[in-house]
Amino acid sequence: MSVVTSGRYTFPNYNLVFFIFLQLGLHSVEGVWPLPQSITSSPERYPLNPQAFYFTYGSQSAAQEGCSVLDEAFKRYFSLIFPDYSSGYGFLRFSVDKPFTVQVSVGRNDCDSYPDEDSSEQYTLSVSAGQAYLKAETVWGALRGLETFSQLVYQEDFGSYYVNKTEIEDFPRFQFRGILLDTSRHYLPVQAILKTLDAMAFSKFNVFHWHIVDDPSFPYQSRTFPDLSAKGAFHPMTHIYTQLDVRRVISYARMRGIRVLPEFDSPGHTQSWGKGQSDLLTPCYSGSTPSGTFGPVNPILPSTYKFMATLFKEVSSVFPDSYIHLGGDEVNFSCWKSNPDVRAFMLKMGFGADFTKLEAYYMENIVNLTAALNRTSIVWQDVFDYHERIPKDTVLHIWKGVPASYEAELRAITKAGYRVLLAAPWYINHISYGQDWRNYYTVQPLNFSGTEEQKKLVIGGEVCMWGEYVDATNLTPRLWPRASAAAERLWSDEKQTSDVDKAFPRLKDFRCELLRYFSFSDNAHGIPITHHRTLFYEVCLTYTDASVSLRLQAGYPGRASLCRTLQTRVPRCLIITDHVTFLSI
Amino acid sequence: MSVVTSGRYTFPNYNLVFFIFLQLGLHSVEGVWPLPQSITSSPERYPLNPQAFYFTYGSQSAAQEGCSVLDEAFKRYFSLIFPDYSSGYGFLRFSVDKPFTVQVSVGRNDCDSYPDEDSSEQYTLSVSAGQAYLKAETVWGALRGLETFSQLVYQEDFGSYYVNKTEIEDFPRFQFRGILLDTSRHYLPVQAILKTLDAMAFSKFNVFHWHIVDDPSFPYQSRTFPDLSAKGAFHPMTHIYTQLDVRRVISYARMRGIRVLPEFDSPGHTQSWGKGQSDLLTPCYSGSTPSGTFGPVNPILPSTYKFMATLFKEVSSVFPDSYIHLGGDEVNFSCWKSNPDVRAFMLKMGFGADFTKLEAYYMENIVNLTAALNRTSIVWQDVFDYHERIPKDTVLHIWKGVPASYEAELRAITKAGYRVLLAAPWYINHISYGQDWRNYYTVQPLNFSGTEEQKKLVIGGEVCMWGEYVDATNLTPRLWPRASAAAERLWSDEKQTSDVDKAFPRLKDFRCELLRYFSFSDNAHGIPITHHRTLFYEVCLTYTDASVSLRLQAGYPGRASLCRTLQTRVPRCLIITDHVTFLSI
Repeated sequence: MSVVTSGRYTFPNYNLVFFIFLQLGLHSVEGVWPLPQSITSSPERYPLNPQAFYFTYGSQSAAQEGCSVLDEAFKRYFSLIFPDYSSGYGFLRFSVDKPFTVQVSVGRNDCDSYPDEDSSEQYTLSVSAGQAYLKAETVWGALRGLETFSQLVYQEDFGSYYVNKTEIEDFPRFQFRGILLDTSRHYLPVQAILKTLDAMAFSKFNVFHWHIVDDPSFPYQSRTFPDLSAKGAFHPMTHIYTQLDVRRVISYARMRGIRVLPEFDSPGHTQSWGKGQSDLLTPCYSGSTPSGTFGPVNPILPSTYKFMATLFKEVSSVFPDSYIHLGGDEVNFSCWKSNPDVRAFMLKMGFGADFTKLEAYYMENIVNLTAALNRTSIVWQDVFDYHERIPKDTVLHIWKGVPASYEAELRAITKAGYRVLLAAPWYINHISYGQDWRNYYTVQPLNFSGTEEQKKLVIGGEVCMWGEYVDATNLTPRLWPRASAAAERLWSDEKQTSDVDKAFPRLKDFRCELLRYFSFSDNAHGIPITHHRTLFYEVCLTYTDASVSLRLQAGYPGRASLCRTLQTRVPRCLIITDHVTFLSI
Repeated sequence: MSVVTSGRYTFPNYNLVFFIFLQLGLHSVEGVWPLPQSITSSPERYPLNPQAFYFTYGSQSAAQEGCSVLDEAFKRYFSLIFPDYSSGYGFLRFSVDKPFTVQVSVGRNDCDSYPDEDSSEQYTLSVSAGQAYLKAETVWGALRGLETFSQLVYQEDFGSYYVNKTEIEDFPRFQFRGILLDTSRHYLPVQAILKTLDAMAFSKFNVFHWHIVDDPSFPYQSRTFPDLSAKGAFHPMTHIYTQLDVRRVISYARMRGIRVLPEFDSPGHTQSWGKGQSDLLTPCYSGSTPSGTFGPVNPILPSTYKFMATLFKEVSSVFPDSYIHLGGDEVNFSCWKSNPDVRAFMLKMGFGADFTKLEAYYMENIVNLTAALNRTSIVWQDVFDYHERIPKDTVLHIWKGVPASYEAELRAITKAGYRVLLAAPWYINHISYGQDWRNYYTVQPLNFSGTEEQKKLVIGGEVCMWGEYVDATNLTPRLWPRASAAAERLWSDEKQTSDVDKAFPRLKDFRCELLRYFSFSDNAHGIPITHHRTLFYEVCLTYTDASVSLRLQAGYPGRASLCRTLQTRVPRCLIITDHVTFLSI
């Protein structure tokens, strides 16, 4: 390649400029993440003009204008589809005058409901000249289809938007696709939770498992027991979730088709509860005298169950989801063993020296409390491992990778007829070097020996972000796009997504979309949009002479226009090329 | 504590409110990081009113108004000292009318120069009623003193600012306190570099070691060899540093008293160079034919040295610092060995089969090239380990922790009379769980057996952030506050800072300051300032009745005022309490 150097400015030849065009023009029309069950697309493509682009309700749709979930989604997706236009970069003249309409039809008017365990998320999407038809049974399915449509749109050739002729039939492989955030070990500001909900919707996650309290802090501000947060939160005013905060999270999640599953883990992991609720925790003994420290919830006192009944009654009134997570993991027996009253209770109940029976007794009572509130319980696998008598509709949550494999646990739990949720292979708070998303991607949740009936009991999986070393400063880069690997495993057909290397370029494209969102939403990653505009301006000045011929070919009127279009391109994808992703040594 | 519950609102008693006051009022006047060499402070404190707060030049100061470094620093530190006032939260009525003046005097007018290896950073700071005197030999020392002063100011009691009576004498223990950023393995936007420079100034780092190119990419846009970035960068237009970018970084660094040390590492780590400069790299052979791959820079061609002379001539004209880093690490000999021309050259030169001699030959030539440009070379320790003949003023840079300890290397290099820079214990890109800052903090750079003369040859240390897994999305949370641990080791007296547990609360306070900066600068961490304002507003509404008596005591006119002051407090420190830091399981 010839380069002429003249003073401070450099004039490369046309090859370089054309190379850039090629990069801009490159777009995979199958770049939807997670991969739809069935997608066919053709090279035929249609220009989209943000000034003549409309979302409408189909005339036969059960939901019509006024349906808050879809009305808001239309606004949201308009901004996501046309970021340049919506963010003030929309100074381009779009020459396309033909309107394009996305017509959305749903079979049920569930606009005012909450998504639940039985909600259909199925949709079909048909994109043709001038219009797209999106059909779904529920508004939640329509949300999934809108997300897919937004990922089909791309920008090319100086900022024009396009979508290709496409037919999609899609539905999730698993009903439960969750992300756990732990707001006890570090407090997460509500804004960080909302941002996570946005990103979850991009990957079609549909459950936010809110591990809201634990040993280190109790940030949930209870209406009935305000001392729990007043004394048990890291800070009684700033590091809490008020009722308003919780409502805001639930509402924000609903608008994105995401359920909010609260976890109030007991009898272990409750040190922070004890600060605001006396006599709740077991007094530990050193020999024959209380040591002054406390252990798990005290399972022998009637007051414990009275407290729990009241608390869970409140919880079930605050959180609309039909599931409540009751925890039940990692109960340390040493304090119970040290306490003479507990030992006496064990004798009386005939538990001998088997404290798993005491734990079983406790959990059985708690599960029954929530069953009485018409709620389905989820508990960690420990509860199953101890063979408690628990209602058959309880969901077991697998978190242990060792010593037993999670495959063996899947087999055992489903054989016993319980529904099960898999988290063990997706502990995303774990850190390592390199592309560990591949490990998350290659999980085969149904790869255990069992009948078809057993496999149907696997309701889904969950990505867990435990909070020991995670707060608002590092949550986002640790969570995304790694969690998206699990999202595709839980949504898409396993056979079509068995090749991790084939997934890689698609995930890179998807990361680009995520970064674009995070950059626009609050410039969270320091991606210097304005700086890049400056950079491009300088580049334009430098390359003027070389691009004259090119501009003439493309019918552009002058340098200023070329520069503007180049600038406009930057925020969309160019700032986030493949190279900043996943590099290994 | 009694709590009255009434419907949806909760009214805690006064204890809770007073508890919060206690937290607000808690301030360590010795909370300067890194710790000054000598600091005495008294409980006597002076209120500061942003509307009557001034920076001025002392009448005897060699620098006066018009000194860009200090003029800009005065503006910058005003905003840092009074964030509420500067960020639009300044709707408080400050009742303090007495002015407070910080009078700055420097011995030399070095306003238009660059900080260099000999720049004094010593300063004295004396804070008394109505005024502070800051004296330094150079403007760079004055910058350090302004940073210290800004850290002495704190907010209390509904937003008032205070500074305590204080006397400080301060100077750095080591002259060279650097941070390496690697912009080749992942491109870092200029904005991310500038943000890092800001944070460096807060910790009194004074050298930005710009590892600007390496194997993966060549983002430096050379005036003389534009093909190097056009073909060797990840992207020829977006992922480069133009001459303007470089000037911007150097200027931004100068304003903060930070040197910019460029590294152009060779002969290894140069794969990206080969894309834009043919015949620069050694053709590797497979048997008797070229394999099509390339190895390190070809050390046997005169054209290589001609190219390097031209490149380094440009580099020395672009980067004003008297040091240039030449790399020289990790040269893989296998390609050289495979090449028959290289082998013939070895024979001719009498190097036998010892390829370290060939590397020595190459590095000697490169070091001599830069010496001819009147620049001091820094090279990685490999160059010393191979016993090359290198000029005595070359600085050796220790990066290897194993197999030999860095202590042994410190001893050997200083015994040979070379100056040395320590990086090995501060490879901050390494990840682990828990408080690894303790490891960075407890390094003892002079803890090797050697004479006093030898110890003087240790010019400082450097925190290295290699870029394999770091880009703009995770740079900041990975770098801060961990790097600050090394900053104190390199600035402060070792005896006064030998207790890592005593350092912990100070580092936590300092992290709070860092977060405040990052939150304000671009909300990079999603700390929801506006949300917290909402939260406080709600809290205020909720707590109204309980706070009536309190407001009367404090002389505040009403609820609205209380709410405003509480809101005003939030951005400063309350949102970033100790609890979000360093938590372990």
